[in-house]
Amino acid sequence: MKIGFVGLGIMGKPMAGHLIKDGFETYLFDLNEKAVNELVDQGGHACSSNKEIAENCNVIFTMLPAAKHVSQVLFGDDGLAKNGQPNTIIVDMSSISPEDSKSFAARLQEYNMSFIDAPVSGGEPMAIEGKLSIMAGGSDEHYNQVLPLFESMGGNIVHVGDVGAGSATKLANQIIVSINLAALSEASVFASKSGIDLNKMYEAISGGLAGSAVMEAKMPQIIDRNFEPGGRIEINYKDLGNVQSSANAIGVPLPVTNLVKEIFSSEIANGNGMKDHSFIIDFFEKMANHQTPKGGKL
Amino acid sequence: MKIGFVGLGIMGKPMAGHLIKDGFETYLFDLNEKAVNELVDQGGHACSSNKEIAENCNVIFTMLPAAKHVSQVLFGDDGLAKNGQPNTIIVDMSSISPEDSKSFAARLQEYNMSFIDAPVSGGEPMAIEGKLSIMAGGSDEHYNQVLPLFESMGGNIVHVGDVGAGSATKLANQIIVSINLAALSEASVFASKSGIDLNKMYEAISGGLAGSAVMEAKMPQIIDRNFEPGGRIEINYKDLGNVQSSANAIGVPLPVTNLVKEIFSSEIANGNGMKDHSFIIDFFEKMANHQTPKGGKL
Amino acid sequence: MKIGFVGLGIMGKPMAGHLIKDGFETYLFDLNEKAVNELVDQGGHACSSNKEIAENCNVIFTMLPAAKHVSQVLFGDDGLAKNGQPNTIIVDMSSISPEDSKSFAARLQEYNMSFIDAPVSGGEPMAIEGKLSIMAGGSDEHYNQVLPLFESMGGNIVHVGDVGAGSATKLANQIIVSINLAALSEASVFASKSGIDLNKMYEAISGGLAGSAVMEAKMPQIIDRNFEPGGRIEINYKDLGNVQSSANAIGVPLPVTNLVKEIFSSEIANGNGMKDHSFIIDFFEKMANHQTPKGGKL
Amino acid sequence: MKIGFVGLGIMGKPMAGHLIKDGFETYLFDLNEKAVNELVDQGGHACSSNKEIAENCNVIFTMLPAAKHVSQVLFGDDGLAKNGQPNTIIVDMSSISPEDSKSFAARLQEYNMSFIDAPVSGGEPMAIEGKLSIMAGGSDEHYNQVLPLFESMGGNIVHVGDVGAGSATKLANQIIVSINLAALSEASVFASKSGIDLNKMYEAISGGLAGSAVMEAKMPQIIDRNFEPGGRIEINYKDLGNVQSSANAIGVPLPVTNLVKEIFSSEIANGNGMKDHSFIIDFFEKMANHQTPKGGKL
Ligand SMILES: NC(=O)C1=CN([C@@H]2O[C@H](COP(=O)(O)OP(=O)(O)OC[C@H]3O[C@@H](n4cnc5c(N)ncnc54)[C@H](OP(=O)(O)O)[C@@H]3O)[C@@H](O)[C@H]2O)C=CC1
Ligand SMILES: NC(=O)C1=CN([C@@H]2O[C@H](COP(=O)(O)OP(=O)(O)OC[C@H]3O[C@@H](n4cnc5c(N)ncnc54)[C@H](OP(=O)(O)O)[C@@H]3O)[C@@H](O)[C@H]2O)C=CC1
Ligand SMILES: NC(=O)C1=CN([C@@H]2O[C@H](COP(=O)(O)OP(=O)(O)OC[C@H]3O[C@@H](n4cnc5c(N)ncnc54)[C@H](OP(=O)(O)O)[C@@H]3O)[C@@H](O)[C@H]2O)C=CC1
Repeated sequence: MKIGFVGLGIMGKPMAGHLIKDGFETYLFDLNEKAVNELVDQGGHACSSNKEIAENCNVIFTMLPAAKHVSQVLFGDDGLAKNGQPNTIIVDMSSISPEDSKSFAARLQEYNMSFIDAPVSGGEPMAIEGKLSIMAGGSDEHYNQVLPLFESMGGNIVHVGDVGAGSATKLANQIIVSINLAALSEASVFASKSGIDLNKMYEAISGGLAGSAVMEAKMPQIIDRNFEPGGRIEINYKDLGNVQSSANAIGVPLPVTNLVKEIFSSEIANGNGMKDHSFIIDFFEKMANHQTPKGGKL
Repeated sequence: MKIGFVGLGIMGKPMAGHLIKDGFETYLFDLNEKAVNELVDQGGHACSSNKEIAENCNVIFTMLPAAKHVSQVLFGDDGLAKNGQPNTIIVDMSSISPEDSKSFAARLQEYNMSFIDAPVSGGEPMAIEGKLSIMAGGSDEHYNQVLPLFESMGGNIVHVGDVGAGSATKLANQIIVSINLAALSEASVFASKSGIDLNKMYEAISGGLAGSAVMEAKMPQIIDRNFEPGGRIEINYKDLGNVQSSANAIGVPLPVTNLVKEIFSSEIANGNGMKDHSFIIDFFEKMANHQTPKGGKL
Repeated sequence: MKIGFVGLGIMGKPMAGHLIKDGFETYLFDLNEKAVNELVDQGGHACSSNKEIAENCNVIFTMLPAAKHVSQVLFGDDGLAKNGQPNTIIVDMSSISPEDSKSFAARLQEYNMSFIDAPVSGGEPMAIEGKLSIMAGGSDEHYNQVLPLFESMGGNIVHVGDVGAGSATKLANQIIVSINLAALSEASVFASKSGIDLNKMYEAISGGLAGSAVMEAKMPQIIDRNFEPGGRIEINYKDLGNVQSSANAIGVPLPVTNLVKEIFSSEIANGNGMKDHSFIIDFFEKMANHQTPKGGKL
Repeated sequence: MKIGFVGLGIMGKPMAGHLIKDGFETYLFDLNEKAVNELVDQGGHACSSNKEIAENCNVIFTMLPAAKHVSQVLFGDDGLAKNGQPNTIIVDMSSISPEDSKSFAARLQEYNMSFIDAPVSGGEPMAIEGKLSIMAGGSDEHYNQVLPLFESMGGNIVHVGDVGAGSATKLANQIIVSINLAALSEASVFASKSGIDLNKMYEAISGGLAGSAVMEAKMPQIIDRNFEPGGRIEINYKDLGNVQSSANAIGVPLPVTNLVKEIFSSEIANGNGMKDHSFIIDFFEKMANHQTPKGGKL
């Protein structure tokens, strides 16, 4: 089995690294040659185009910014569909919408290729550790074929349903993450303007029903006013755009998500798209005319 | 040291029970005689009025439905202030607003009494186990005096600040719990109408950044469509009312909390106030015209 | 018939002036003596306390900032209830909640006095012109007794129902005004950041289904960036607070109103409470990082 | 000058009828032959394809449901661009996004054709009367060439700016209309559940700052519970989708519009997309568990 990997950015590079380390024969392509070269040093095989990937591999991973990039890699003239072999399995691990995933699967079928949508959560740290959560959509047969590869890159791996289900689950994940960030922000601004030391608030409530992974990850960042990303506002916003187009398509109104989405949009309009998504607290701080103090205590 | 305890409902009864069990001399009053009698069987002392409590005790706990009840117990003609002794410490563990807590403290000062606001989280199960989270506001001196009593009833006990800080922290807690419930609801309805088995969603995302205590506690309830309370919608709504009046008082706009508050209000208007607060998923299900299936899978 | 008028501020002074001009024997009181004196010059009778008003008059108008002031004027020791005569009709024209209006009416009944709630819209200009809209709640009998007095001060006078109905109608009015202001703001920021001259937008849409009194009154102010009040943000916010407490009392969720209310709250937190309520456009401009230009055209 | 008109539905048919009546030589095409035939009876010329329109005409109007239809009519193999003559002016009067309008204009330039976006408001009644509001985007030169044609169909005609400005103005219009509908709905449910006769509310407030074209048009419909369209929920929702994609493109967060959009979405999910847009009151009625009574009075 020859594995292809297209898209060697923040996420893709360490993910492909695990495949190589675990002994899979891995062919690599990215617009950015440097990333390819680094992985070649680790034992991967460089390709100079998607076409070359397509010609060599029978399982191909893509890990690209958004659906339009996936579309180009798959269906461009130089792309995987036109240049690949029948029975190739394409596994897209980018975060895109289920509607896009399904449409890609349908178009690949015309080339006798199969598709799995397998977006991830856990971010760069888990990608590096090889412990990503992977939520995969596709047939049992194809899922089982690629499972060993998922196990190389991931920790918690769940086959959530048919094609599109992986993407939909990832979007459900992003709904929760985004809203929980807003919740933490409102609570923190409220408590801080009430005169409470955020360290004390954290100590008091993180072990109870208000506790969450978002609180564990982001409360320390908020207290330190350290908004180095982690997950960037603009990527989170892209995901919320996918949530919305998918929700529109299937008829699910999401009043809270969409209010939060506008808050992300405001941060981008004000030049903060590159900051960590916990920086949406800035919106609530400005509304209240109160910035939570560095160190947590006024 | 003689301890008084007023308000022996779902929460107060097991809390007072721990004090008794741990050997504190505990005087009891509640409008409901049955609760008093049960605790007398465990070793407590029955009182027949707040006045009697006031006359006997130098530390008095109150655990009552809302601020108006606390106000009456404290400042009624038969109440603790008019009938008690100087230097009494009153510890209100009800969930009320910081503004009410501060005003009670100020009025008690005229009687040479002290006040601690020490609301809890963890609900009936933790009250029974004696492992409540207690977030206390008051002076160091008074806090230290009652700390052994808190240790009898609580697990995680934090002195969050001066009078009012306990109540404010509890409200911050409720902001997060309420919004996280809305987040889980939107994600579940979205995923389910997308065709995803909620068990699979839970398995895929609960270990990552979307994970939370709310998800751990409520996802199983949603999947079972078991909305026996736990925390009732109407109590949660009362807390959100306190959030709002406190936020108004200190000038903290809370757009997401207030949107969620209206959703709680709608469930009450539709007769569901007695159900578990996770039942706000009903609102989103009706918006989407899709009920998540019992068992999680369509 | 001797008429009393308590509360001679921005609204009350010109309103009482019309009564005097139309020949009604009018007794006046306000904490601010200057306002009383001005009206005495026009033919009114000065009183030096609410007590003196109560002793002299059988129909008494109040036009005060908020319910707490009305409560004090009515039920203070020096107030209208304790010092007045049976069968007095008290007509409160302040903007308060229907729940307060009803409670005042009930308490006045114990003094054999009657109550009408008759808030107004139209603001200072219509108060000066004597063309206020008056929405009155109370019995037919009492309404008919005071109708000639309303006709002196008002243009469009409607008997909307029993006690409380006047206040509720005024709040319904404020719901619409506040939300329509938000609508105009969002549309203006959107159009302006799209590159459109707001004068052109106004010309194109004001005659159609988007047209409104809010647009007629406020679009020119927005284009001139002239936010001299008119209706102040803080008064509008007070009304939205009454909307909310009344809506809570009767079980009417108002998701849009409450979102808009938080926006008013933010402007107050940022020091803009004294500006015209059309200044809430500031909130949307900051969200979009785009200020609509003075003159309407970039 | 030979005029083409493509899209003879609810709006397009009466619009083309005015051109014919005013003596313009008008060529007609619609997928629905019946509409063409009716207009032929009035003096128009039938065409059997967009190609035929393109070959015959130098000014061509399109009035189609959405951008995808416009795209097909313009750029399909059988469409206006490939089959038309240089210097043709295409005037799209459909409601689409400014981004689509600009992209169509750019693509038409490659064919040496010009584009004006000129959406309308006023609905079917004004289309029939020939009194539509027309908001046009394009160059002065082209605008002046087609102005006599606009004058045949419209009443208030405004040249709002360059290509895209017409569409953006129409979307600003839809922002206001949609939110004002929500405002009227919240106020009506609040007043009605307060016990107020909606006729009285209407009488009391429609002349003041709460008054609006939406209130004039829709309050009677709400009182009669007559939700025959007028403007349909699903068309209004389509416009709000365009608002959102355009607002995303230019970076304008619209929190109120997007909340209202989810309410429209809910009505569609619940099968009410074909009803008049004033039927969104249904959402608020269900939230409050109170239906406003037919006739306005409980
Ligand atoms: N970062 C995170 O924390 C997480 C990200 N994700 C998702 O993972 C996906 C990838 O994210 P991330 O790794 O951060 O993104 P990056 O932008 O870092 O990486 C994308 C890579 O794809 C390359 N690329 C783009 N187009 C092509 C093409 N046509 N052919 C070949 N290579 C191409 C880019 O090259 P170049 O840079 O030269 O354009 C870049 O190296 C996204 O969908 C994201 O939403 C999911 C979970 C967490
Ligand atoms: N302004 C507007 O555009 C509109 C206002 N309203 C409503 O009308 C009401 C009055 O508004 P407005 O006239 O602007 O308010 P102002 O504050 O201008 O006037 C209130 C007056 O009442 C006096 N007052 C307060 N307490 C007492 C008391 N205990 N005894 C006697 N007099 C007292 C105040 O005196 P002092 O200043 O000395 O305290 C002041 O002169 C409010 O409820 C408002 O919401 C309604 C429609 C429009
Ligand atoms: N209705 C209203 O109140 C208002 C509508 N608008 C806007 O005006 C536009 C038109 O609305 P409306 O008239 O109501 O829509 P309709 O659906 O009634 O009319 C559209 C017409 O276009 C025809 N059509 C669709 N595709 C093609 C094609 N490829 N070639 C030729 N004809 C085609 C349709 O034919 P067929 O039916 O056979 O598919 C139909 O007759 C929309 O953008 C709408 O948003 C603006 C203001 C008010």
